[in-house]
Amino acid sequence: MAVYQDTLTQQTRGRGTLNITQAVEHIVRASGITTGTCHVFQHHTSASLLVTENADPDVRHDLETLIARMAPDGDPAYRHDMEGDDDMAAHARAMLTHNDLTLPVGQGRLILGTWQGVFLWEHRYAAHTRRLTITVQGE
Amino acid sequence: MAVYQDTLTQQTRGRGTLNITQAVEHIVRASGITTGTCHVFQHHTSASLLVTENADPDVRHDLETLIARMAPDGDPAYRHDMEGDDDMAAHARAMLTHNDLTLPVGQGRLILGTWQGVFLWEHRYAAHTRRLTITVQGE
Amino acid sequence: MAVYQDTLTQQTRGRGTLNITQAVEHIVRASGITTGTCHVFQHHTSASLLVTENADPDVRHDLETLIARMAPDGDPAYRHDMEGDDDMAAHARAMLTHNDLTLPVGQGRLILGTWQGVFLWEHRYAAHTRRLTITVQGE
Repeated sequence: MAVYQDTLTQQTRGRGTLNITQAVEHIVRASGITTGTCHVFQHHTSASLLVTENADPDVRHDLETLIARMAPDGDPAYRHDMEGDDDMAAHARAMLTHNDLTLPVGQGRLILGTWQGVFLWEHRYAAHTRRLTITVQGE
Repeated sequence: MAVYQDTLTQQTRGRGTLNITQAVEHIVRASGITTGTCHVFQHHTSASLLVTENADPDVRHDLETLIARMAPDGDPAYRHDMEGDDDMAAHARAMLTHNDLTLPVGQGRLILGTWQGVFLWEHRYAAHTRRLTITVQGE
Repeated sequence: MAVYQDTLTQQTRGRGTLNITQAVEHIVRASGITTGTCHVFQHHTSASLLVTENADPDVRHDLETLIARMAPDGDPAYRHDMEGDDDMAAHARAMLTHNDLTLPVGQGRLILGTWQGVFLWEHRYAAHTRRLTITVQGE
């Protein structure tokens, strides 16, 4: 059994999803671990993680449509709006999705379904530098 | 410390929840691991995982009612609708719930609360064969 | 590699969030593990876990506002209402947030972003005693 930990830095382009599957896979391979788990954690309260369909970009477009209804920008009920209309909405979108993911590792690779991709979701309007910690454990 | 990994295949009966607690527990016992964690991952983008009340089936009925409001079938705003009214709704329901769960293991068993059950949630109308990878780690 | 497991008991004050970051950090330090992961699991179906902003309490106030719209108290559609208006709403709020979290551990401490706090969210109106199992794994 061993543990391998590395940092991943991603530059987002403002609100939207960024496919980070390859970047995470790269760290799994560097770990030398063949069977176990890969933990992905992002260090921000206005971004989040998601496993979803990797083929048709319309899926992620429609997820944006739905989450914008649930966590509207600039809702008049918000008390927390210091950084603009997307400030509180970003925290709420993060609540509804995932701050951390754990993915299975087998034969030295991520074991994902054919249509599963791993995405970093930027919820702020502006581009941000987002930091992640990846921890691979197993043997 | 050791790692034990196995595959679980579940046949769903179309939209609805399937209690997989016993099936996961079976793998924990086979692992021989007494203290650690059990990671459950499902390999599909239109199904998901949930820990919720295991006693009154009305709880899961009401969760269906609420998630159908948040991720409506056949919403006119959807661009992604190739496979029918439940296609995009299924991806959105998966986003709002969980693609992976980690459960604590103690004394060689899952440590769950009295009322907690582990459920695989099929979000498509049709029955599907769903594949999961279970990874138990600990000592 | 080693595993360290402990129980955490928290007394809530009824609906609302409780910052448990320090209590979890305390267990990480007691574990003696310097690099790995810390898994936090709560054993109830009407409470949940959340990583969110730790600075401005208005953020958590606004998250309450939004989740109350998505999972309304006493909704006429609910079948499960034995324990009052907050009974089914609590299960739904738990579904939309997290039953378990995994946090990275580095240099013997939780690795969290500057603004990230770990919260136990009580969804019932009444105060409850909530039990958590914390499992630290790594080396």
